[in-house]
Amino acid sequence: MSAPSFIAVDWGTSSFRLWVLAADGTILGESRGPDGMLSAAKIGFSIVLQRHLKTAQAPSNLPILICGMAGARGGWMEAGYVETPAALTDLPLRAVEVSFSGRDTRILPGLCQRTESRPDVMRGEEMQLFGAAASIAGRAHVVMPGTHSKWVVMDEGSVASFSTYMTGELYDIITRHSILTPPEGTIAEGPESAAFINAVRDSFEEPGRITSQLFAARSGQILNRLKPEAALAHISGTLIGAEISGGTAGSHGTSVVLVASGRMAALYEKAFETVGLAYQTIDADTAVRRGLQSAAAHIWQHL
Amino acid sequence: MSAPSFIAVDWGTSSFRLWVLAADGTILGESRGPDGMLSAAKIGFSIVLQRHLKTAQAPSNLPILICGMAGARGGWMEAGYVETPAALTDLPLRAVEVSFSGRDTRILPGLCQRTESRPDVMRGEEMQLFGAAASIAGRAHVVMPGTHSKWVVMDEGSVASFSTYMTGELYDIITRHSILTPPEGTIAEGPESAAFINAVRDSFEEPGRITSQLFAARSGQILNRLKPEAALAHISGTLIGAEISGGTAGSHGTSVVLVASGRMAALYEKAFETVGLAYQTIDADTAVRRGLQSAAAHIWQHL
Repeated sequence: MSAPSFIAVDWGTSSFRLWVLAADGTILGESRGPDGMLSAAKIGFSIVLQRHLKTAQAPSNLPILICGMAGARGGWMEAGYVETPAALTDLPLRAVEVSFSGRDTRILPGLCQRTESRPDVMRGEEMQLFGAAASIAGRAHVVMPGTHSKWVVMDEGSVASFSTYMTGELYDIITRHSILTPPEGTIAEGPESAAFINAVRDSFEEPGRITSQLFAARSGQILNRLKPEAALAHISGTLIGAEISGGTAGSHGTSVVLVASGRMAALYEKAFETVGLAYQTIDADTAVRRGLQSAAAHIWQHL
Repeated sequence: MSAPSFIAVDWGTSSFRLWVLAADGTILGESRGPDGMLSAAKIGFSIVLQRHLKTAQAPSNLPILICGMAGARGGWMEAGYVETPAALTDLPLRAVEVSFSGRDTRILPGLCQRTESRPDVMRGEEMQLFGAAASIAGRAHVVMPGTHSKWVVMDEGSVASFSTYMTGELYDIITRHSILTPPEGTIAEGPESAAFINAVRDSFEEPGRITSQLFAARSGQILNRLKPEAALAHISGTLIGAEISGGTAGSHGTSVVLVASGRMAALYEKAFETVGLAYQTIDADTAVRRGLQSAAAHIWQHL
């Protein structure tokens, strides 16, 4: 049986995940919860972490490595950013130590792109990227969809540049606060629906029309008996198609590495197929654990 | 002195405007209020109209012509839609009569585009269009910016096609409900600001990146000391630039007719100049009155 080696923590804005990992990556203990940075800032970061360590039955002598919003300004301790172009191995070298009940506890920095025209920041996804990097050779696009989707151009193990697309957050506010808000309880049709597929294709081909194409979710219901469930799939497809248009602009023939799980993976896979983009998928959970493991091996070389 | 000829009403979702007009367009009385369709549906449409007639000191024998959301489903009386391609003169012919204290009172229909791929609806702006049409020869784009901006392709006095862009509503929900929401009381920099102009140009040139360019309103504040006032101008410019990109796609060299007033006119004029698009501006208030007057002359030929 594998011996426990270190504690890996992915501390997001609104979620917390902790694993007790062996040196070979075997999961020996786990704890998850909704106590991300927003609630931890109120409860106390140490208290939240202590509670999850107990749930996961984590041995008390293991070092702890944390990525995500715990390192943001207003988080547990600010961990700064590594600037692009950046070698992923710079990230563990720049981790900051935080005082936590006598354990060796470190928080990883984020990535930033400090250009005048395309400033951008990332915090948390860089460990998924580190985990996915082992499967990537040469130049490739890595896509990590979510509230703020990240499109990263990797080049020989380094981050050349990246862009954030507000796809998930726009979907959320459009379907909750606009004239396109559906009746409560409406569930979007899935990635196989015509509404999703057509919307992806149309906004990929004519991204300038996306703020108009969104409105068709309403006029389609007035004029063409579009169902609310299909209207949601239309909105989702419109935003994802625009994201792919922007992410792949000027780089024809590129293939992408999709880091995602579950429904999110299914939506993006179907969208990539719709616009004829080759891809491979890496499970997001696996990627972040692998990334934290690679980073831990750089920090604590005895692991 | 001109004799009063008829009552013109523009009844929107959240605003109400009424004019007592002479046959030559002179304004002889006026009343405005926030009691649009949403509040009138609760108070009662007759009551709201009666109140404004009193405020404007309207003679009791004049006919009344209404455009806007009073004719929507859920409004005072459903007035349907005229389908594109449509002659503007079809609109007054299809006005519906509504019973109102013995007066001749009519509600104008909206316009709809009943195509599978680009269904669209308009209700209210078609009278601005009618009013602007007198200044338009041949083929032209008419742009009526707002919560739901309308881009209309006019051809020899007929509406060939149109598209709605959710520019104003997206600006509203993004700046109120997303991570880009500024501190309370922040006022956006104006159309002359670098933040607005650069954002218009960038999203016009690369509309696929608009959902990424929006995020730069945040990362610019984190990395480049972008001020909240400039971030708002950046969001506005991003959405307007994308709208112009979509509205002018495939029609190089077209000039546009802008129907707008005040700050909205200033923003779009600067945006058109930024992307090198020739335009003329027609005041929105004047346009809707002129439109209602033309429509009234078709309905009541003795006017």
